Amino acid sequence: MPLMRSWVTSANDERCPFPLNNLPCGVFETAGRAARCGVAIGDGILDVAELEREGVLVLDGGPYFERPAWNALMAAGPAVWAALRGRLTEVLAEGSGERGRAESHLVPQSGATLHMPFEVAEYTDFYAGRHHASNVGTMFRGPDNALPPNWLHIPIGYNGRASSVVVSETKIRRPWGQVKGPDHPAPVFQPSRRFDIELEMGAVVGVPSQPGHPVTVAEADAMIFGYVILNDWSARDIQAWEYQPLGPFQAKATATTISPWIVMKAALEPFRVSTPPREVPLLPYLAEPGPMLYDIDLEVTLTPQGGEESVISRTNYHEMYYSAAQQLAHHTTSGCAMRTGDLLGSGTISGDTKDSRGSLLELSWGGKEPFQIPGGTRSFIEDNDTLVLRGQANGDGYIIGFGDCTGTVLSALTDPYAR
Amino acid sequence: MPLMRSWVTSANDERCPFPLNNLPCGVFETAGRAARCGVAIGDGILDVAELEREGVLVLDGGPYFERPAWNALMAAGPAVWAALRGRLTEVLAEGSGERGRAESHLVPQSGATLHMPFEVAEYTDFYAGRHHASNVGTMFRGPDNALPPNWLHIPIGYNGRASSVVVSETKIRRPWGQVKGPDHPAPVFQPSRRFDIELEMGAVVGVPSQPGHPVTVAEADAMIFGYVILNDWSARDIQAWEYQPLGPFQAKATATTISPWIVMKAALEPFRVSTPPREVPLLPYLAEPGPMLYDIDLEVTLTPQGGEESVISRTNYHEMYYSAAQQLAHHTTSGCAMRTGDLLGSGTISGDTKDSRGSLLELSWGGKEPFQIPGGTRSFIEDNDTLVLRGQANGDGYIIGFGDCTGTVLSALTDPYAR
Repeated sequence: MPLMRSWVTSANDERCPFPLNNLPCGVFETAGRAARCGVAIGDGILDVAELEREGVLVLDGGPYFERPAWNALMAAGPAVWAALRGRLTEVLAEGSGERGRAESHLVPQSGATLHMPFEVAEYTDFYAGRHHASNVGTMFRGPDNALPPNWLHIPIGYNGRASSVVVSETKIRRPWGQVKGPDHPAPVFQPSRRFDIELEMGAVVGVPSQPGHPVTVAEADAMIFGYVILNDWSARDIQAWEYQPLGPFQAKATATTISPWIVMKAALEPFRVSTPPREVPLLPYLAEPGPMLYDIDLEVTLTPQGGEESVISRTNYHEMYYSAAQQLAHHTTSGCAMRTGDLLGSGTISGDTKDSRGSLLELSWGGKEPFQIPGGTRSFIEDNDTLVLRGQANGDGYIIGFGDCTGTVLSALTDPYAR
Repeated sequence: MPLMRSWVTSANDERCPFPLNNLPCGVFETAGRAARCGVAIGDGILDVAELEREGVLVLDGGPYFERPAWNALMAAGPAVWAALRGRLTEVLAEGSGERGRAESHLVPQSGATLHMPFEVAEYTDFYAGRHHASNVGTMFRGPDNALPPNWLHIPIGYNGRASSVVVSETKIRRPWGQVKGPDHPAPVFQPSRRFDIELEMGAVVGVPSQPGHPVTVAEADAMIFGYVILNDWSARDIQAWEYQPLGPFQAKATATTISPWIVMKAALEPFRVSTPPREVPLLPYLAEPGPMLYDIDLEVTLTPQGGEESVISRTNYHEMYYSAAQQLAHHTTSGCAMRTGDLLGSGTISGDTKDSRGSLLELSWGGKEPFQIPGGTRSFIEDNDTLVLRGQANGDGYIIGFGDCTGTVLSALTDPYAR
């Protein structure tokens, strides 16, 4: 599919992440006006809440945009999602006779503050990157036991904390936590010294499933509304001490940052790719009826305070061993009901080379091999470092972007219990 | 504190779980009327939603009962909770001049259907019973490694699935899942054969905490609105295969049943007891400023289809090594924000004797020592078994109850993907 041209001329630039082909979903606020739903187009945001209110945008079963969150539309399902895209494409297309009705509801991105695009119902994080699992397993358990015995059979996941999910640009406070080094006689409570990122994609569930009824991979794919870029901030020192036997808990609860825009699945259709060849056969309930991953280039940059931004990792979402649809299908096997607004983190996305690793833990090999950045080195995140995660799918004369997924790490509170 | 007498005479019976001293919070439905908030008193339910609508119950910051869930009142904090109890006590006390205004809003429990008393924001399950952790650890890792190294330092917990929480009487469908026995060459997908209960108490968070700001144990205690009885249904065969390295996932996602009534913390005040002596000192952030557990007798019964109900376990909530307040304080250490409606499972409550174990896994020692029930034996739950969990605090001439926490296990779906 080639670039679809819009009368919003900035959207026709081949380097613009928000062409008419994209139409990602966000929530924005402008001076003096409350937060509301909008769609990015070029360097602007189209106010879909206002378009709906004025009757320019009429969707079966609506209204959908009375609240500043996409959940109502997400729950409406694929037919309404398609109708929304169809109608917005009509209104925004080059030569549209409705330009006049829409143009007054187009605001510049530069003057807008972006909020969480949806209300997170529950957050689940997976561990589905082959290279990441091997790297971490090798560091923690040695090369012979790198991959847990279930890893090639189950998309391993754990429930995360929905209240921790924040939108890009939210400042991240370095956490305190209980830690114990291997040589320490007893644990101590102190600020995390090994605070890290995890480069992930997040799948956003639109259509809920019924309690007691597992869904197939095809049904799971149809339930997914769209994708975001996701940074699962991780305190490695807290994790190492707490995670046995029931998994990560406070190490992952400080924050999880997502990109401000949800890219709808339809915008990613041209970029579908298959998961890699299976190393062992999967059980039938995990079989994919078609390509369920996406070819999305990803990069991570680090910028020290007052310093220069440098790329510390480049990889691609197609590195995952399991797709979000497989993860979602597995998530329902027990009869677990999935809900509108559930967020599924892919797991850290690492490639097979040193410079394609999706966490500082891997990039610095557990801190043993600090990596170079302009003017210094890093093992883990230092105070006031800014981390940016970016993703883009490369189309035929256009790109699909998600907006930067950005967080700056502030120093830990001096006394977390001071009031 | 002695029994407080009510004009609802059934509440004055020393065997009634709902005396005026209790006033637990539920949501009920009667024929032809929508679900609404109510408080149990004797054999009746007082319709607090209607009392509020009529102006008999006026609380600062209200109305609180416009929706069929206690969340709004829970969020209002201790002063409003106390005002509610004070006002209801006034209205329901023996000799109250307001009996006439309230009596028409008293409905019999026998004709009411009970619903979830609150909307669960997020669900966290802990592992804080010393005997349970030792028993399970011994079975899985041998007696020398029974207790994980962090267990005496951290109230170990993991995030569960809020969408799985259901109210007592909800039928539980035996789940399918991916399992692999130690002798099997590859995993299989089949109905769970080792489906189990976990006897727990649940703490219900009322007052939220702020992101980035840990709370002390005293602050955590003040945030807790009340307690429920909780059954954390667990598929042991699914758990054994999936839980390494990131913890239980689908094994715990089928359902978690809670009692229909939340007992407010104030009703439990006379029953406060201290956690057991520490085996090793705790870090200061986990120090308790006073008794934070409760003396609550607990029992589990099993009733086969058409068979006789028998008690399979008797224990007490005071067996826990960590209190809910300690768990909640630990939950915020990373800066994790807690929300109104968060539910914290205590972890399985087992005593130190064979007949005080809070799971079938322990009662049957992993299935190796099936236990007797009238007319048979059990290792794990069989289809159509009904499990009831009960709790009561024993006061001076009265008891405090939670209502039965009941679930019947239905046979697994023949084909979970049939549509």
